[in-house]
Amino acid sequence: MTVIDMHAHFVPREWPDLAARFGGADWPGIRHTAPGKAMLLLGEREFRPVHSALWDAGERLAAMDRDGIDIQVLCATPFLFGYQRTPEQALGAARIFNDAALELCAQAAGANAGRLKSLCQVPLQATDAACAELSRCMQAGHSGVQIGNHVGVRNLDDEGIVTFLQHCAAENAAVLVHPWDMMAADRTRQYMMGWTVGMPAETQLAIVSMILGGAFDRLPPSLRICFAHGGGSFAFLLGRLENAWHNRDIARGKSEHPPSHYCDRFSVDSAVFDQRALRLLIEVMGEDRVMLGSDTPFPLGELSVGKLVRESAMTAAGQAKVMGGNAARFFGI
Amino acid sequence: MTVIDMHAHFVPREWPDLAARFGGADWPGIRHTAPGKAMLLLGEREFRPVHSALWDAGERLAAMDRDGIDIQVLCATPFLFGYQRTPEQALGAARIFNDAALELCAQAAGANAGRLKSLCQVPLQATDAACAELSRCMQAGHSGVQIGNHVGVRNLDDEGIVTFLQHCAAENAAVLVHPWDMMAADRTRQYMMGWTVGMPAETQLAIVSMILGGAFDRLPPSLRICFAHGGGSFAFLLGRLENAWHNRDIARGKSEHPPSHYCDRFSVDSAVFDQRALRLLIEVMGEDRVMLGSDTPFPLGELSVGKLVRESAMTAAGQAKVMGGNAARFFGI
Repeated sequence: MTVIDMHAHFVPREWPDLAARFGGADWPGIRHTAPGKAMLLLGEREFRPVHSALWDAGERLAAMDRDGIDIQVLCATPFLFGYQRTPEQALGAARIFNDAALELCAQAAGANAGRLKSLCQVPLQATDAACAELSRCMQAGHSGVQIGNHVGVRNLDDEGIVTFLQHCAAENAAVLVHPWDMMAADRTRQYMMGWTVGMPAETQLAIVSMILGGAFDRLPPSLRICFAHGGGSFAFLLGRLENAWHNRDIARGKSEHPPSHYCDRFSVDSAVFDQRALRLLIEVMGEDRVMLGSDTPFPLGELSVGKLVRESAMTAAGQAKVMGGNAARFFGI
Repeated sequence: MTVIDMHAHFVPREWPDLAARFGGADWPGIRHTAPGKAMLLLGEREFRPVHSALWDAGERLAAMDRDGIDIQVLCATPFLFGYQRTPEQALGAARIFNDAALELCAQAAGANAGRLKSLCQVPLQATDAACAELSRCMQAGHSGVQIGNHVGVRNLDDEGIVTFLQHCAAENAAVLVHPWDMMAADRTRQYMMGWTVGMPAETQLAIVSMILGGAFDRLPPSLRICFAHGGGSFAFLLGRLENAWHNRDIARGKSEHPPSHYCDRFSVDSAVFDQRALRLLIEVMGEDRVMLGSDTPFPLGELSVGKLVRESAMTAAGQAKVMGGNAARFFGI
């Protein structure tokens, strides 16, 4: 069994001064503060302390060895998306981070060759530019793309985003949807509630808007799309959504079928941190639609990658799917 | 076994012109459109079609008989809260709706006497006025109070709201927290996503902010507080919250203990519309902390009240608690 962790993040060790290169203010930056330690910056403002596991391939591979992970699929963090920039700015920054991702993966050489795979990022605010960068990246060796769960007020059923997703299907690019730019920021500033409240709500909104907005009805079943953090709160709230769909006409939106009908059109990762939640997730999504994803190396990820699934009551066959079989199919590994 | 539905809504058949009485615009109103049918209004704008089950005690009792419900605890809808008004305006409106609730309950007479109980509403934006109206209502015969899950940017760990909740404990008033004024309104306008995405996220935020903001540490264990719609997405997301608490200092807020420690400090209703979700809810909250609540007579409620619990795999003893035993203790019935 090839064990695949399909949700892991990176940032490059360093990157050019994006404000100097592209104009505009408050670009993401990084300031190294001590050996193995750095501070992510937004302009001059400190955003988040980080450490070398984010940019050091050797450290990353050692952690994978420790946890019994054969392959890791890494992507940048939403912090680097730039969806609020001009298309030219966002595309320029995306190229830098996308090429850096491939360089990081290439550092896994010799016996480790092929153990690091990457997802690119695109200027999702500009459909044509996003499609072009996706095509460039797939040719360059990326395994797919990570996108944010919305662009400003545009949910994932937005026409331009659906066009991009159709392009992903045509390019055979796997899609990971990650929450970002979280709702209710004025009430979740404290205690990381943006991560524990905002993110799962964002992800649920992404799935619900794709269902009710008719996006899945317009997209080919061949599209491989996965939602981070176990799909946010979607699986638990499906009953509420389904009840609304059946009992209130305006709760149906443009969807052709009840919400549960669409559960075989997307996947989720396993990052739910609780056996009871994992069981519900498997029950709702099916064991073919849940993939090991750790959110490593961030502290809100699974610190011992794969522990939750390995210690679950799933059958051995089910575990094998979740630990790697599903991801191998999803990413064409 | 006395079966109690502890989450049901009412509006009076009619009420005074609140703009004329209190000043200000866009007050809630009701316009009867046909026998048994009406439109709720915000000022002149149509808000929601409703029907006579909301204000007709006879119809309500007949529905309860049909579903085998002995007692129903009703409350107004958040539409009537008025938290954005001046304290005087909100208090004046609250008095009208609180007295109307008691009148509706009193219509259950003779053999039906005592089958309808009510929760009051208060001007939660003004702590002193809220405490005074709560005391008046408890003396007048209400069983407790329904509050919204936030007041503007103030979550439930806000000092004034905690003071109000301390007063509820002192007055022996049960509290039902209902989501309202939902987050991400600019992205959930369509397809009732305010109800299916916004509401459960609001309720989870309410619980999380009470835990991490240290509200439960400051409130007496005697406070009886219940969160609507199965506590929103809280039960499913507890693992994520717990993982964050243990691994990131700033995710702990002011809480003295990990989030799971506080699950015995509050209750939730059973309105989750899915057996798998109900099972998770019982596992996380315990069968002493889930109470039958239907959200009737709204179309997003449980149309056949109690069906989900009755058809669940719970033990008979567990079902008896959820169907009425827990609520009898919670409301002192």
